[in-house]
Amino acid sequence: MHCRKCERAAVINMRHHKLSLCGEHYGEWFVAQTDRAIEKYKMFTREEPVLVAVSGGKDSLSLWDALLRLGYRADGLYIGLGINDPAPYSDVSLEKTRAFIESGGWRVAKNPPHDELEIASSQTPLLAMTHQPVLHVVDIEQTYGKAIPQIAREKARGQGKPCAACGLTKRYVMNRLALDKGYAVLATGHNLDDEVAVLMQNTLRWQTGYLARQAPVLPASREGLTRKVKPFCRFYERETATYALVRGIDYIYDECPHAVGNLTNFYKTLLNQLETQSPGAKLSFYLEFLRARGEGAFEQFNKVDTLHACEVCGQPTSAPGRCAFCRMWDIEKLDVAVV
Amino acid sequence: MHCRKCERAAVINMRHHKLSLCGEHYGEWFVAQTDRAIEKYKMFTREEPVLVAVSGGKDSLSLWDALLRLGYRADGLYIGLGINDPAPYSDVSLEKTRAFIESGGWRVAKNPPHDELEIASSQTPLLAMTHQPVLHVVDIEQTYGKAIPQIAREKARGQGKPCAACGLTKRYVMNRLALDKGYAVLATGHNLDDEVAVLMQNTLRWQTGYLARQAPVLPASREGLTRKVKPFCRFYERETATYALVRGIDYIYDECPHAVGNLTNFYKTLLNQLETQSPGAKLSFYLEFLRARGEGAFEQFNKVDTLHACEVCGQPTSAPGRCAFCRMWDIEKLDVAVV
Repeated sequence: MHCRKCERAAVINMRHHKLSLCGEHYGEWFVAQTDRAIEKYKMFTREEPVLVAVSGGKDSLSLWDALLRLGYRADGLYIGLGINDPAPYSDVSLEKTRAFIESGGWRVAKNPPHDELEIASSQTPLLAMTHQPVLHVVDIEQTYGKAIPQIAREKARGQGKPCAACGLTKRYVMNRLALDKGYAVLATGHNLDDEVAVLMQNTLRWQTGYLARQAPVLPASREGLTRKVKPFCRFYERETATYALVRGIDYIYDECPHAVGNLTNFYKTLLNQLETQSPGAKLSFYLEFLRARGEGAFEQFNKVDTLHACEVCGQPTSAPGRCAFCRMWDIEKLDVAVV
Repeated sequence: MHCRKCERAAVINMRHHKLSLCGEHYGEWFVAQTDRAIEKYKMFTREEPVLVAVSGGKDSLSLWDALLRLGYRADGLYIGLGINDPAPYSDVSLEKTRAFIESGGWRVAKNPPHDELEIASSQTPLLAMTHQPVLHVVDIEQTYGKAIPQIAREKARGQGKPCAACGLTKRYVMNRLALDKGYAVLATGHNLDDEVAVLMQNTLRWQTGYLARQAPVLPASREGLTRKVKPFCRFYERETATYALVRGIDYIYDECPHAVGNLTNFYKTLLNQLETQSPGAKLSFYLEFLRARGEGAFEQFNKVDTLHACEVCGQPTSAPGRCAFCRMWDIEKLDVAVV
């Protein structure tokens, strides 16, 4: 199969777009589509500082790469979770993140790792880039005294997986650092497969409050909360992986060992069957949801709860007293800096 | 496993209800649950004449049986579609329907076909039954000159399956006969598995107009349309099959040969995986949808289109001129009686 734009062999065939592209043209298309999503959903401007949550995986590193190539003021935030058993997941993911930004690979494309991918060796950045990206690293164990598996074991009361404790911690640290450092917006690498898995979970129980808020942009609805955006929400996972490949981005292949076999992955398997039966089904499920939501399907469920300031850290919380984060970490007074 | 209510062996274990029952107690539970659904959703009263669409399958015959045992004024409508190739599907289904009502089996329970099911031989009707049920039979070929496969071949323009032509014809004949014969309501045997498969299809494309109207009761929103109800919408398919079994109802096991491999069955397979992973997931998907719908999630999409009277048959139709049914069947003037 050939590239739609030149005579080279295609590296990807996107049936839902009826589009095959070679590595070079795919990289250009992908970055342009990213910019279109940012503009369409009014995520942020080239003037606003953006904090990208990077995990060392294909999605977040590709996002940082694409934003930098597009000339956005994108810095990174890596949160060290201390998940290194049975395999050094956290250590390797930090290493990949550091290697990505230190190599400056985002400035000029490297050759892809596979010879069969024909990439123009002279591929140049799409835009002049004046921004010097910064990588913020917050190590949870160094900052709060315990790694995620340890705090989860102590606090999760035998429920097994540390995912709830991990999610709470990451959301808190991301929001807090974005605010403290003056970022206008927090960008995450959630792709279409992630979004439809969550959408399916929310839909199967008709969790109307969650459905009302699931969108490419979650506005900073009140003081103390950062705007959150998902510029990759329309890309299939296969598409972000292909971008990482053609850009020569070296990322951590394994997913978090605690995510193996979780419910989200079960829904992803179901949705993959649906996609095989009907190519484009996931994209249509998501985009048609956004249309229905935009037409007001769940508007009456988007209730803004009264928020309180946590009596320790001052961050917004739903009940008076200490917030869930300060309670979980037994923080009594604000002597713990995030970074 | 034992029956919750007596010491006999259970014939069914409903994990989503945490309930195991023997044949006799299951039959009683099933009929009582049917009555609760009829009352909860305000489907019809014991005074109103009800027309049950019967196909000879487990769902519709069980529905007719349960309604008669509950003392409702339930008559049947069998529509002969002429689908007898490769197997005599229509002929056998009419035979089963006739045998059901002629045997009077709905008056007193027969012994079930399997010896291991312990049913009290003295099982009596739940209520005194004074209604003498009538079976209306409309044979499409005799009435309109062609069987469904033939009209579909001529009209479907090579699209293969006759399901669209069949659905249009059945909906028309059911509505028309119910009106002509003065029935207050048309009841169909759709079970939970049917409903969630349709709900999933509608949800995957966020067809908000369909979602706004999917409910256990479709009111007779205007003149010329009959109220439509689904008293079995909360029963799993396995539950209606078990009811037919313990009641000794002989039904046609095969589904319509044209339904094999269709999209609805694909969704049923997906939903079965979901149910296996999380028992009760289908029931929750449906009931939570009804809750969200009841709370107005899709209210603004429930638009009542302007309807016209078909210039031939007078039935409501969305565009001026002849209705889709009269056009498909090339009916120029009203000399064709439904029955």
